[in-house]
Amino acid sequence: MVVVLKRDHTEDQLRDVSKVMEQGGVKVMVSRGSEVTILGAEGDSSGLDEEALSQLPGVEKVMRVSEPYKKANRKYHPDDTLVDIGRGVVVGGRKLTVIAGPCSVESEEQIVGIARSVKSSGASALRGGAYKPRTSPYSFQGMGLEGLRLLNEAREATGLPIVTELMSPDQLPIFEETVDVIQIGARNMQNFDLLKKVGKIDKPVLLKRGLSSTIEEWLMSAEYIMAGGNDKVILCERGIRTFETYTRNTLDLSAVLAVKSLSHLPVLVDPSHACGRSWMVEKMALAAVAAGADGLIIEVHNDPGNAMCDGAQSVTPDQFDALMRKLGPLADCVGREL
Amino acid sequence: MVVVLKRDHTEDQLRDVSKVMEQGGVKVMVSRGSEVTILGAEGDSSGLDEEALSQLPGVEKVMRVSEPYKKANRKYHPDDTLVDIGRGVVVGGRKLTVIAGPCSVESEEQIVGIARSVKSSGASALRGGAYKPRTSPYSFQGMGLEGLRLLNEAREATGLPIVTELMSPDQLPIFEETVDVIQIGARNMQNFDLLKKVGKIDKPVLLKRGLSSTIEEWLMSAEYIMAGGNDKVILCERGIRTFETYTRNTLDLSAVLAVKSLSHLPVLVDPSHACGRSWMVEKMALAAVAAGADGLIIEVHNDPGNAMCDGAQSVTPDQFDALMRKLGPLADCVGREL
Amino acid sequence: MVVVLKRDHTEDQLRDVSKVMEQGGVKVMVSRGSEVTILGAEGDSSGLDEEALSQLPGVEKVMRVSEPYKKANRKYHPDDTLVDIGRGVVVGGRKLTVIAGPCSVESEEQIVGIARSVKSSGASALRGGAYKPRTSPYSFQGMGLEGLRLLNEAREATGLPIVTELMSPDQLPIFEETVDVIQIGARNMQNFDLLKKVGKIDKPVLLKRGLSSTIEEWLMSAEYIMAGGNDKVILCERGIRTFETYTRNTLDLSAVLAVKSLSHLPVLVDPSHACGRSWMVEKMALAAVAAGADGLIIEVHNDPGNAMCDGAQSVTPDQFDALMRKLGPLADCVGREL
Amino acid sequence: MVVVLKRDHTEDQLRDVSKVMEQGGVKVMVSRGSEVTILGAEGDSSGLDEEALSQLPGVEKVMRVSEPYKKANRKYHPDDTLVDIGRGVVVGGRKLTVIAGPCSVESEEQIVGIARSVKSSGASALRGGAYKPRTSPYSFQGMGLEGLRLLNEAREATGLPIVTELMSPDQLPIFEETVDVIQIGARNMQNFDLLKKVGKIDKPVLLKRGLSSTIEEWLMSAEYIMAGGNDKVILCERGIRTFETYTRNTLDLSAVLAVKSLSHLPVLVDPSHACGRSWMVEKMALAAVAAGADGLIIEVHNDPGNAMCDGAQSVTPDQFDALMRKLGPLADCVGREL
Repeated sequence: MVVVLKRDHTEDQLRDVSKVMEQGGVKVMVSRGSEVTILGAEGDSSGLDEEALSQLPGVEKVMRVSEPYKKANRKYHPDDTLVDIGRGVVVGGRKLTVIAGPCSVESEEQIVGIARSVKSSGASALRGGAYKPRTSPYSFQGMGLEGLRLLNEAREATGLPIVTELMSPDQLPIFEETVDVIQIGARNMQNFDLLKKVGKIDKPVLLKRGLSSTIEEWLMSAEYIMAGGNDKVILCERGIRTFETYTRNTLDLSAVLAVKSLSHLPVLVDPSHACGRSWMVEKMALAAVAAGADGLIIEVHNDPGNAMCDGAQSVTPDQFDALMRKLGPLADCVGREL
Repeated sequence: MVVVLKRDHTEDQLRDVSKVMEQGGVKVMVSRGSEVTILGAEGDSSGLDEEALSQLPGVEKVMRVSEPYKKANRKYHPDDTLVDIGRGVVVGGRKLTVIAGPCSVESEEQIVGIARSVKSSGASALRGGAYKPRTSPYSFQGMGLEGLRLLNEAREATGLPIVTELMSPDQLPIFEETVDVIQIGARNMQNFDLLKKVGKIDKPVLLKRGLSSTIEEWLMSAEYIMAGGNDKVILCERGIRTFETYTRNTLDLSAVLAVKSLSHLPVLVDPSHACGRSWMVEKMALAAVAAGADGLIIEVHNDPGNAMCDGAQSVTPDQFDALMRKLGPLADCVGREL
Repeated sequence: MVVVLKRDHTEDQLRDVSKVMEQGGVKVMVSRGSEVTILGAEGDSSGLDEEALSQLPGVEKVMRVSEPYKKANRKYHPDDTLVDIGRGVVVGGRKLTVIAGPCSVESEEQIVGIARSVKSSGASALRGGAYKPRTSPYSFQGMGLEGLRLLNEAREATGLPIVTELMSPDQLPIFEETVDVIQIGARNMQNFDLLKKVGKIDKPVLLKRGLSSTIEEWLMSAEYIMAGGNDKVILCERGIRTFETYTRNTLDLSAVLAVKSLSHLPVLVDPSHACGRSWMVEKMALAAVAAGADGLIIEVHNDPGNAMCDGAQSVTPDQFDALMRKLGPLADCVGREL
Repeated sequence: MVVVLKRDHTEDQLRDVSKVMEQGGVKVMVSRGSEVTILGAEGDSSGLDEEALSQLPGVEKVMRVSEPYKKANRKYHPDDTLVDIGRGVVVGGRKLTVIAGPCSVESEEQIVGIARSVKSSGASALRGGAYKPRTSPYSFQGMGLEGLRLLNEAREATGLPIVTELMSPDQLPIFEETVDVIQIGARNMQNFDLLKKVGKIDKPVLLKRGLSSTIEEWLMSAEYIMAGGNDKVILCERGIRTFETYTRNTLDLSAVLAVKSLSHLPVLVDPSHACGRSWMVEKMALAAVAAGADGLIIEVHNDPGNAMCDGAQSVTPDQFDALMRKLGPLADCVGREL
């Protein structure tokens, strides 16, 4: 933390600001120029509150120098983290991870059928919602426990690890038992209670970026999980909210590069939710891999026109297969493999 | 719902779209022009999925006509809702509600002192956080149960009803017992699990607008609570996330007018969180009342420079008192009273 | 400017960064701690490029301390600027300025009629577009020179100074001759060629904030005009672009406070363009004055349903009269007068 | 245009709305249901004002069906437009166009040197600013006419067509004579005066997307140019303004897909301005091509640390060469060639 004092600050103000900084746990280095006086914090400044400091009398400006996240920070963990999600699938590293499946589990036939199909196209894992976050209380809310059971059947049938969203801490025990990767959705990215709870278990967590979360807030949410002891965090960019309304959200592929630079955690991209239009999925999936994503999450539905949720953005198994065929050679171009 | 078909649609496509609409529970009115064919839905179209319809073959565009919320909709409940929060305080109606207090409960002396002070300045209720949503897992997370106990002492001492944020369903029973208004914070506005749970109790809920939530999404979250049976919902605008960084958020006062027009629920404004700078609070509070807000939530701290949270945006008891003195005459100008 | 070096910076890097800073015209103050090394710039740092510095080898972070605008900066000009726009009207100071009139000049009868009407309700100046910035090349583009002539007739008839938008440098000579205040519209806020040109004349300029301009960029555009020698700049907040679509734009009233604090220039608010809905104008106008605006720009049309432009957001002369009657007492509450 | 009336509309209101629509030049098709009454416009609805209609008494909602742009619309021009920019270079089609060069022309040695270098790496055209849009009036504003002269020398030396930004209509004649592609910058995307003027000449125009422009507004600005008779328009996505501050802007690659679907015009991507960090350029360039862009604009500087403008985002000639080597195979993967 660096604090710049106002040109007309008093000695008392300098002393007060220094004191607040020292109480926050740092040593203060004072540098007086003829026009500008700078206080530099040495040591762990995570106890200092940037905004509070900036309001103290005599303070002109405050700048945080170090990132507020530690366990998620590449500075302290230079090597890429690899997350083993079971059944021989590892997220991160040279090999891309492609998670595919429907928005919601709708029936045994549907989920097992799609699982078989995406597996034969080369998917690494199966996604499918049993509990669905819906804007309206009157929309289909997911099959619940029965959905979890059907996901397990699909895993039995195909060997694909399963990824599904947790919305309530009440379901945590059953998720711990039956699910391979617990997804925390965009709307719950700052549901700190839920983050703390999944931080205390030993199970991979897929953390989606919030609709209007900065990259730093996203990494801080990863830090919440890791601070609890669970370092199996997989990040997922899924589009942010902007003024543009043609697409459902705006896919921020530069965030993938940023996160890979700032953190050692693997990052996937979900082009389906980002675009909200199935015809855009293939090209944005290719772009995501070209940008350096560690993999993809793709919504696949056997009958998008009649899907109970998000049909507009789901590709068919055939379209998914075509996508995978194009992805292989492109991955090779950028030093990855499928 | 109105569906416009593409100029070159086929009869089969028209039939298929009509069928999907009818399966959604509406009667379809077909209107064929020489250039444009329009399908109008009659009846309850809440079972129709706008995005899914828009992806069907032959469809050019889809427009939803009616709002997706019912219980929160002024169309069906033209009269303003008044929410009784206990101790003789009613939110909504001619009289403004001013909720004041610190970001966090820090000690008995602090909370009881501030409560006495804001009461003497004319506040209607006391706010104070016992559980705090913090971006960093390493920041002060609130005093927890002890905080709730101290809030109760402050209520005993002053008679002010207490408003505090619920972050975890685990705490719901103790909140139900000890708190007058349960606050759902901006970051949990679409924590649907929590919304459903507070929808099933009989206790006023203060629902803050999410950082990047549209007005419609906000009202849909109110609908979640009301759909469960709890219609004691108070809305609170607290600033939205935009590209501007001078203020912490951008206070959207036109949203107050929009919500008062679309819904019958009362709306408060929190200028402290919106601006993030204490010197802005007074003027934005006056502006909020001029715009038609039913009241305010103001952060007040006896020693903002040393607050454990959000000191930068807290006014002192003296500043709060000055604000209240200016608020009275202004309220009178716009047909309200303090 | 303060530059923080990376912990592992080399002496050569320190020397190179210092050199770049010195070449930019400042004296460098080096402060070495055991963990952090800080370079502080003394003197005029307007020649330093923050982004370029931040990319130099060994640099961790760069923070600008002083604002990049000088002439528009309240630090160097503590007193409020008052802008005399002629006919006895001064913008800034205790008395509010209310500029009213139609989006476009449409006919002599229309503009003179509206001018008489708004004058009798207490307006200080008349607005009306002769050249209109329209999203579509196929929309009405304004009456042009004939529109300017009609505005002059309206001024003759009422004595109200006239405010109208300049879109092309070609029209500058005729504007200089016939107009009292030259408006630079939101879309031209960073049309630097036009800014430079109006900076060289001696005529008040009303500078609207761009749709997605930060407060600092807005003040830098004012600086462009002032750097040319024209310090008669009036700022106007007119709503920014956000994700919310219920209103045309989001009126950012906290920007009024920010600008009044950072700059000495007067600030008006245009609630008509911000909201895009005429029924919102009155309340947002009151809120703007409560927040501290120096005045308002209100679209008034005698027949909004048939206006050639922006009818949706225009109030009728009667509605404008009602607004003005409410504005007087409210202005009084906040230490202003109408 | 489709207009839905309020359930309780009167016959007079229906008649009035129909009349306004007919005056706008369309035939009105009335469709009355038991609950909903819909008015459909047949014919050219470009004379109808959506917002004005939506404010008429009795109107519930208005939906525009057809896009407001015609000449830029793929519906009326299904085939891709190819723009010949001279010296054998055509933008659009299978072959990618890569425009490279420094932000500003700084000297003969610099611009000719960079031109030779990027040509040898495979660039198709040379970019370089002679007139620079700078946020601050105190920053380097470009070399002006001398810059144009140096660009011409670089073209002589290499045969690369030159692309440079026009900021003032005053310079249009000299640009017409000496430049191959006229760039309209993001800040001037809605400088309608300038758009009209470049619409009247016969010279390719590179139209950058405004910082907060919707895709539709961008295409409407292209329409302004085309409406004047100049159909040689090349679009360029360069990042939009969002809440994220890690990158200078947020590159919106889904906009490339959207524009390629809505319009027949070619689309380039400028990853340098979008990201503002040179280390991100390569990967985002690859992603842009994977997403379907027709080419790239890349800032290349021989000495980024001492560039007079935008050094932070410029790659060196060596980095550019490396990028081009990776681009070739990737282009091949997505059916394009370099």
